[in-house]
Order: sequence, then structure tokens, then C-alpha cells
Amino acid sequence: MENVTVLGAGSWGTALAQVLAENGHHTLVWTHREEQANEINTQHKNQKYLPDTTLAPNLKATSNLEEAVLHSDILVVAVPTKAIREVCSTMGSFLQQKKLFVHVSKGIEPDSLMRISEMLTESLSPDVVEEIVVLSGPSHAEEVVLHHPTTITAACSNLEAAERVQDLFMNQYFRVYTNDDVVGVELGGALKNVIALAAGISDGLGYGDNAKAALITRGLAEITRLGVKMGGNPFTFGGLTGMGDLIATCTSVHSRNWRAGNMLGKGMKLDEVLEQIGMVVEGVRTTKAAYQLSQEYEVPMPITNALFEILFTDKEPKVAVDELMIRMKKREIDLY
Amino acid sequence: MENVTVLGAGSWGTALAQVLAENGHHTLVWTHREEQANEINTQHKNQKYLPDTTLAPNLKATSNLEEAVLHSDILVVAVPTKAIREVCSTMGSFLQQKKLFVHVSKGIEPDSLMRISEMLTESLSPDVVEEIVVLSGPSHAEEVVLHHPTTITAACSNLEAAERVQDLFMNQYFRVYTNDDVVGVELGGALKNVIALAAGISDGLGYGDNAKAALITRGLAEITRLGVKMGGNPFTFGGLTGMGDLIATCTSVHSRNWRAGNMLGKGMKLDEVLEQIGMVVEGVRTTKAAYQLSQEYEVPMPITNALFEILFTDKEPKVAVDELMIRMKKREIDLY
Repeated sequence: MENVTVLGAGSWGTALAQVLAENGHHTLVWTHREEQANEINTQHKNQKYLPDTTLAPNLKATSNLEEAVLHSDILVVAVPTKAIREVCSTMGSFLQQKKLFVHVSKGIEPDSLMRISEMLTESLSPDVVEEIVVLSGPSHAEEVVLHHPTTITAACSNLEAAERVQDLFMNQYFRVYTNDDVVGVELGGALKNVIALAAGISDGLGYGDNAKAALITRGLAEITRLGVKMGGNPFTFGGLTGMGDLIATCTSVHSRNWRAGNMLGKGMKLDEVLEQIGMVVEGVRTTKAAYQLSQEYEVPMPITNALFEILFTDKEPKVAVDELMIRMKKREIDLY
Repeated sequence: MENVTVLGAGSWGTALAQVLAENGHHTLVWTHREEQANEINTQHKNQKYLPDTTLAPNLKATSNLEEAVLHSDILVVAVPTKAIREVCSTMGSFLQQKKLFVHVSKGIEPDSLMRISEMLTESLSPDVVEEIVVLSGPSHAEEVVLHHPTTITAACSNLEAAERVQDLFMNQYFRVYTNDDVVGVELGGALKNVIALAAGISDGLGYGDNAKAALITRGLAEITRLGVKMGGNPFTFGGLTGMGDLIATCTSVHSRNWRAGNMLGKGMKLDEVLEQIGMVVEGVRTTKAAYQLSQEYEVPMPITNALFEILFTDKEPKVAVDELMIRMKKREIDLY
């Protein structure tokens, strides 16, 4: 059994900490809010993010980042994408030994257009990074804590590091596969949120499963096209972290991105939607980044384009989706 | 405008006839039940299959097969798979000129393991077959008649014939693409029903979106593996008639196959399920055919195998699905 630290006590960080604790590891969760740490330690609850779950007794929490970091050689980074650089910078002052970093975030940094592992590499001294492993796949936290069967991928160019993460998390209900294609895994996880917004819009407009299936199918095709140009393996996009996560996100009420799209399709404006959801909607920032990447790499991405126009140039969702559906193409192989 | 005949007045045949009539074609539907033909002609209704739809006034019906066949040079075959050979045999006595056949069925014939176009070729004299085009994709009839955006593929090795079918059906809400890969389109459409049963079982067992996304992702991988070995183009399986139709079928309450799986997952026996649904559940027959094909072509298809055991050897669904989820593999590229 190992000492493991999870940074961040949102729903996904907490669910992963629960898996680790149930696997017998000495698991410490860091949250910047002291009352949340107390709640986990004394009541074994995380009322805000996983209200129906009783946490394992060997899952401990702290609001002291230094204590959290010194607890183990394995740091699972589960803070919001926006907070990653700040947390890395704070850790910098007391990080001295090499750690194995596992990140579980899905996004692309605005402006820099960096993937998460690139952000981590830039924010941390190479002296303290053993390896960075990304853990990604179709995995709603609410289902993992119920022990519903879940599959996920641990990716690292160094497969031994990915296998170490596999061994940590793997159990009967949580199946971890390894992959050495970090680019493909990170891009698939980030870009599917763009398509989830589009699927939500289609549903919000009252369109049916036929339209949504077409959007998801073409959506994966444009993600793959960009991802391969950026160095990803095409097979990765057809796997759990691409197609699998895309399906889970586009067809689930658990997805904030789908919900945001649904409200847009029903006629709400973006700022109203964000206010009502009250949490980060990663797909909104990712749509802008994906739009910029499609221009930089000169890859046609019609769904991403349409979404960019809906979100940032006030285009009517119905007009944008209808234009998308009737783009005249003749043969299916040319469809994408 | 052309004369077009649709053989079969189930929900899909009727919806396609409605599209054709709305496009201005002189459309005649054949049904073997005289009262159904009368209902369509006098009330513009097909109460049994599309109760909420008012049919176009230029959509006519007949219960006289000879009249139907002589009406046009284009025959859309939309009878149940089981009835295709019998209808072809009956037509044989008065078919004299070459016709363009369009088939819209999804299945594999038991025992012969033939695709639908192979069955048609075998059942019809070559003197009366101009071409056979398959029309397939993610397309619930109930959504098409509401004019919800729908995409579909017309496939034929002779692309000119596929384009003729494209021109017939294409309109603002019904987008038709062409493809020359008949094998890939027919196999994708047939085999997705096997995965829809599996997805229904997972849902019926109470498992969540994580498990279903994994099943669909791995399901498409095993369909593709078999399909490529049988001569299909791998890109076809990632397109509308493969991935698109798989998603629409596995995530929709419209799907009989999903519903049958759902009942099995909840503990009902196969004969009870079939009795309660009261209509053909194509995926049950297709599972047996797919199992036989996987053996004939020596392609590992673990989901199809598990389903075969549930349906035909009385294996407990929970045991089969759990075994499937925990098959130990190390790397994602080996996952399939």
C-alpha cells in the first residue's frame, strides 16, 4: 500500500480519492477550504460535491498544502484547470524531491493553447517531476462511487509510469488501461466538451436522436482530424478517452457542458447560462481554444466553428445548427 | 418527379414514403393488409405504426403487389427481413423489366449468414435487377416525420445508382450521403443491434453511462474488426451507418433492441421479453449470426460472445457483463 495525495476535493478528486482509499492506500486529500477538510475527517462526507456518499475511514483530508505534498511521492492533480498554475507555483516553494504527477483535468489553456501536461511541465521545476501521467476516460464521479463498472486510461510516454498508476487505481469496478499517446488522450478529453455543448444545443432546440448521432459522429471526425495533425494516434480517438468519453458526455444529464448547451438551445444567452450553472463550463473556454487550434493547424472543424459563432458572435443556435446539417456534400467519405 | 414504390408499410417504410411524397414524387406504398391500404388512401393515416402523423395526400397505398411493382422503376424494399425472400418470390411472376432496388433493412439472414443485398441478389433474377442500393443510418422514423434533421447513407458499388437514390430522398431535413462500401454499410447497420441489446442489458442491470460508453466503444471496435475482415472499409464503421447508428440505437428509447436488452437486464427471460414486445427483435437473430461469423472469420468478439451466452445458453446477464468488464488487459491498444 502506498501513500497518495489528491489535490482538490471536487466531485472527481473526491471520487478518485475514494477509489484509492478503498484499494487500501493511505490517501490524503487537499482542499483549500478548512471546513471541507474537517467535514471529510470527522463526518466522512463531502456534502457539496458527493452528497450521497459516505467516504472511506482511511480517506483523510487537510487544508495545508505543504502537509499534503509531503505526505507522498504521488500527487494526483484534481484542481480546476484554471487553478493549476497557481497551485504549482505555491507548491514550488516546498517541493524538493521528485514526485509522480497524475493529472485528471480536461481542457486546453486559453491563449497559450497548451495541453494540461504542457502547463504542468512549464509550471514545475524539472527537478521535482518524475513523470506526468494523464488519467482520462468516460467516468462520471457519481457512478464511480456507486461502484458501477467504469473504464479509464492512464497515459504516459513512459509506460512504466502509466502502469504504476494503473496498479494504484485498478480494482473490480474501476478498470484502468494504459496508453503511451498523451497527446491523443489529452486532446480527446478536452475537445469532447465542445461536441457536448453542440449536442446539448441540438437537444435544446428540440431535435432528436438522429441529429445528435450525426453531430457526435461528425464531431469525433473533426476532433480526430485535428488531433492527428497535432501528433495524436488516430486509434486513441476511437478508444475510451475519445469516442467513449464523447458518448458518455453527450448523452448524460451529469454533464455540465451538455446542460449548458441545452440551455443555449432553449434560447438563453451565454452569460445567463453561466450564471445559472454557477460552476466552470470547461467547454466554453475549450471552444475558443479549439477554434484557434483549427486555424493554426489549418484543419476544417465545422462544428467547432458553428459553436464559436454561437458563443462568441451571438449567432442564433438554430441558424448555426441548421447550416451545419445542410452543408452540401456528396459522398460520405468526403463528409468530414 | 418520379414514380416510386415502397414495399412495406411499417413505421420506416411509411416514413420513407412520406419523405418521397413530400419531395413531390408519385409514391405508392404496398401493404399486404387491405384495411391498412384503405386507411392510408382515405384517412391519410397509418394508425398502427405512426399514429401521430398525417400522411401527404399524394401518398397512395395498395394491397395489390403486382399493381405496386408495375407502378414504377424504383422499388424500395421495406418489408421485415424475414419476409424479403417470400415477397421477392411472389414478385418474380410478374417482374419483367429491370428495376432499381433500394433496401432499408438491417439484419443478417440466419443460417445462410447472408447480408440483405446478397439475399436480394439470390432471390431475384439478374434480368430484373438494375442495381441494389442500401439506405442506412441513424434514423428513427418518429423523428423523420417530424422533420427533425436526419442524415443517412445510400450505398452501392455503382455510385451513379447511389446518387440517383440520393436525389430522390434528399431535402432540407433529410440529408443523404453516398458511399460505395455496401459491405461496411450493411454490416454496421446489422451488427449495431447486437451492441444495442448489450447496452440495454447494462442499463437494465442499473449500471450507468460509464459502463455503457465502454460497451459502445468496445462494441464498435469488434464490429469494425469483423467488418474489415469481411471486406468493409474501416472508415465506414466510424461514419453515420456505423458509429452514428450505433449511438442512436444504444441511447434511444425508440429502439426495440435496447428495450429488449433492458428487460433482460432486469431479469426477464428471453421468451417473456419477445412476447411482451410483440414485434421482431432483429438483434436476437443477429447475435446468433454475428457469433457464427466471428467463428467463421476467426475474429474475437467478446461482447457478441457474452450476448450469445445470455440469449442462448441461459447465462446470467450480470455475470456475463461483469466478466466482460473485468477481462484483464494491460494496454488500451490491446483492449480490443
